[in-house]
Amino acid sequence: MIRLTRRYRFSASHRLHSACLSDTENWELYGKCNNPHGHGHDYVLEVSVRGPIDPASGRVADVAALDRLVGDHVLRVLDHKNLNVEVPEFATAVPTTENLAFAIRDRIERSWAAAFPGPWPRLERIRVQETKRNSFEIRNEE
Amino acid sequence: MIRLTRRYRFSASHRLHSACLSDTENWELYGKCNNPHGHGHDYVLEVSVRGPIDPASGRVADVAALDRLVGDHVLRVLDHKNLNVEVPEFATAVPTTENLAFAIRDRIERSWAAAFPGPWPRLERIRVQETKRNSFEIRNEE
Amino acid sequence: MIRLTRRYRFSASHRLHSACLSDTENWELYGKCNNPHGHGHDYVLEVSVRGPIDPASGRVADVAALDRLVGDHVLRVLDHKNLNVEVPEFATAVPTTENLAFAIRDRIERSWAAAFPGPWPRLERIRVQETKRNSFEIRNEE
Amino acid sequence: MIRLTRRYRFSASHRLHSACLSDTENWELYGKCNNPHGHGHDYVLEVSVRGPIDPASGRVADVAALDRLVGDHVLRVLDHKNLNVEVPEFATAVPTTENLAFAIRDRIERSWAAAFPGPWPRLERIRVQETKRNSFEIRNEE
Amino acid sequence: MIRLTRRYRFSASHRLHSACLSDTENWELYGKCNNPHGHGHDYVLEVSVRGPIDPASGRVADVAALDRLVGDHVLRVLDHKNLNVEVPEFATAVPTTENLAFAIRDRIERSWAAAFPGPWPRLERIRVQETKRNSFEIRNEE
Amino acid sequence: MIRLTRRYRFSASHRLHSACLSDTENWELYGKCNNPHGHGHDYVLEVSVRGPIDPASGRVADVAALDRLVGDHVLRVLDHKNLNVEVPEFATAVPTTENLAFAIRDRIERSWAAAFPGPWPRLERIRVQETKRNSFEIRNEE
Repeated sequence: MIRLTRRYRFSASHRLHSACLSDTENWELYGKCNNPHGHGHDYVLEVSVRGPIDPASGRVADVAALDRLVGDHVLRVLDHKNLNVEVPEFATAVPTTENLAFAIRDRIERSWAAAFPGPWPRLERIRVQETKRNSFEIRNEE
Repeated sequence: MIRLTRRYRFSASHRLHSACLSDTENWELYGKCNNPHGHGHDYVLEVSVRGPIDPASGRVADVAALDRLVGDHVLRVLDHKNLNVEVPEFATAVPTTENLAFAIRDRIERSWAAAFPGPWPRLERIRVQETKRNSFEIRNEE
Repeated sequence: MIRLTRRYRFSASHRLHSACLSDTENWELYGKCNNPHGHGHDYVLEVSVRGPIDPASGRVADVAALDRLVGDHVLRVLDHKNLNVEVPEFATAVPTTENLAFAIRDRIERSWAAAFPGPWPRLERIRVQETKRNSFEIRNEE
Repeated sequence: MIRLTRRYRFSASHRLHSACLSDTENWELYGKCNNPHGHGHDYVLEVSVRGPIDPASGRVADVAALDRLVGDHVLRVLDHKNLNVEVPEFATAVPTTENLAFAIRDRIERSWAAAFPGPWPRLERIRVQETKRNSFEIRNEE
Repeated sequence: MIRLTRRYRFSASHRLHSACLSDTENWELYGKCNNPHGHGHDYVLEVSVRGPIDPASGRVADVAALDRLVGDHVLRVLDHKNLNVEVPEFATAVPTTENLAFAIRDRIERSWAAAFPGPWPRLERIRVQETKRNSFEIRNEE
Repeated sequence: MIRLTRRYRFSASHRLHSACLSDTENWELYGKCNNPHGHGHDYVLEVSVRGPIDPASGRVADVAALDRLVGDHVLRVLDHKNLNVEVPEFATAVPTTENLAFAIRDRIERSWAAAFPGPWPRLERIRVQETKRNSFEIRNEE
């Protein structure tokens, strides 16, 4: 078994504001990330897949297929977008990087079987880095 | 003579759209950066100052004074902001990183004499990195 | 479940010298790190916490609370300090990065319940990078 | 228990071409990596070892012994080499980074007992980064 | 005046061997880079252009035009190639990074007027990073 | 003309304290860098040399000769050392990175002619990075 981690980038803007909270509570919770006009980040996405090596090709996964999956179902939806306004998952949910990570994981999972019909490789982990100081990781069995 | 380069970070959102151009021309020129809802970046700002070393302190510049100048006149204005909506320079100018770099340079210059009343150090250069692939540099004599 | 990794930096000096060993053995074991006058590093500390997302805030942890905990109980004690002379843990233990990592883990653990009184988030892992070539990781269940 | 990760670099050239496939299939599978004259990379190798801290030395592993093992059995064989022509493992196997990672893992394992005769430290993981976008990881129990 | 620096990557293999020198001299001069089967690197290329900001677009250069120029005349020729065998400039010249930098500079210069017919922007500088330890820079007036 | 920049690393400890100033003034000026027990950094040193390419070798400088010069006259003196106690230049001068940069420049200059007896290459610039946030650069003609 071996795991491949592949790295992607996208730029997006967002505003952190929860409909469950008052304006004061939002400001206390999110600080300057609550600024009503939004701000932005250059996100880094890592996708890790796991499986055995195919003896003929010497590879664990068809990287071109993975790039197509992530390009079509994640990057096209998020890159150079306003997360609050343009991404359906954030019509109600707050676009924290935690929620963003789950949205990305779910989008990848829903398209997985079409891109990788065999038993391997499996999606093992995604990691979203919001800034150099913060990153968020979901392991797929959780 | 020696030069100190100090590094700062800020996150902001913007939309590239020129009032001088049609919608089609804007799209052709700026591509996905023309997305009406905006997107964002984690900018890196480098400020370089030049001067002789002060013999008593062994330093070329009072770094705390430089940090206050950049904090008060640049980062407070730009960090976690929507450049188009919240930063006066971009009421009319397009918030390309080129225009952003000149706006930052001008803001630093206007406050320089108050922060550094002596003949040295002098502002030599600023550099704004928009993404890992693009950076913009202004040398101060230009 | 999701995990947040947050990144901190501190600069410190140290000397590797074990009271259990002769001078020759110390030199053979630690090489130039045994230099009696010490040397220093810019350490990177990563703290990983794990938990469910709070539905109201969309977050796994109160980052401000984590920063206060690490700032008060780790960075204030270590940053710009001489580990051998100024940090109680190294009155007897050798300030290798291994021992430093356990000292940091223990300091975070002791303050955890006061900062995070609920069942989540939990401290999952810390990682201390001494230089680009060496890093040390402790998983919390170990 | 603590784990140390140590980082090494090597430069090598390779060509991806499988004897099990036709020329057309090779081109479809490997793209420009199938270029008959080869191309090259600056690989990064991370070796992670795990164990308890030795109380006398405050260390989990003799880093000099690890460097000798990796230097003699991995870097000397791979650095500034053409993987297809000069490395025995790739006389038949395709030098994908997946196969390269297993070759490195096996080389380290075969020399482990001579370098570390005691029960600890144990080899836990190796990671080979081919480019900034791709890395491959093997955990030792797999 | 402002300068834009744009960053590209390519992977290639090479062998350093000068026809002007004996085998022994080649080995003494180039060391393991003289290995007859070659080795490889992930090169980073930075291209810096200089000019005034166009008031309508807010930009110093048409980045898409620059990318096409570099893509067609540099990356297509060098990426995933064996420099000694496949790149005409190195039929006789040794593919050191110094000679590679001049070859890239000359290729960009020859295509400049077709891509940028106006007086601005001008090519100011190129920089080629061979590894983290070595980079080479040519300023265009030299 | 082309310039080569070569990168080195060293770790050292220091304390910023000026004999020209009172204890209070030292604290106000240097803050926690004035801590009497010192602290440390992982410095990065870049040395840039300039010259024409030698037609036979395709190189601007004998990198091995440069490494020996920097190794013998800079790294051996500074690496894993306490700058205040062990480096003669700081018997009286404050070991700020500004003064450290001049000390390094002077050490390289004094040994230059022995290492590079011909007219080329010439030392053009050194840069010392103290942390990710601060770097200091001296151009040789200044």
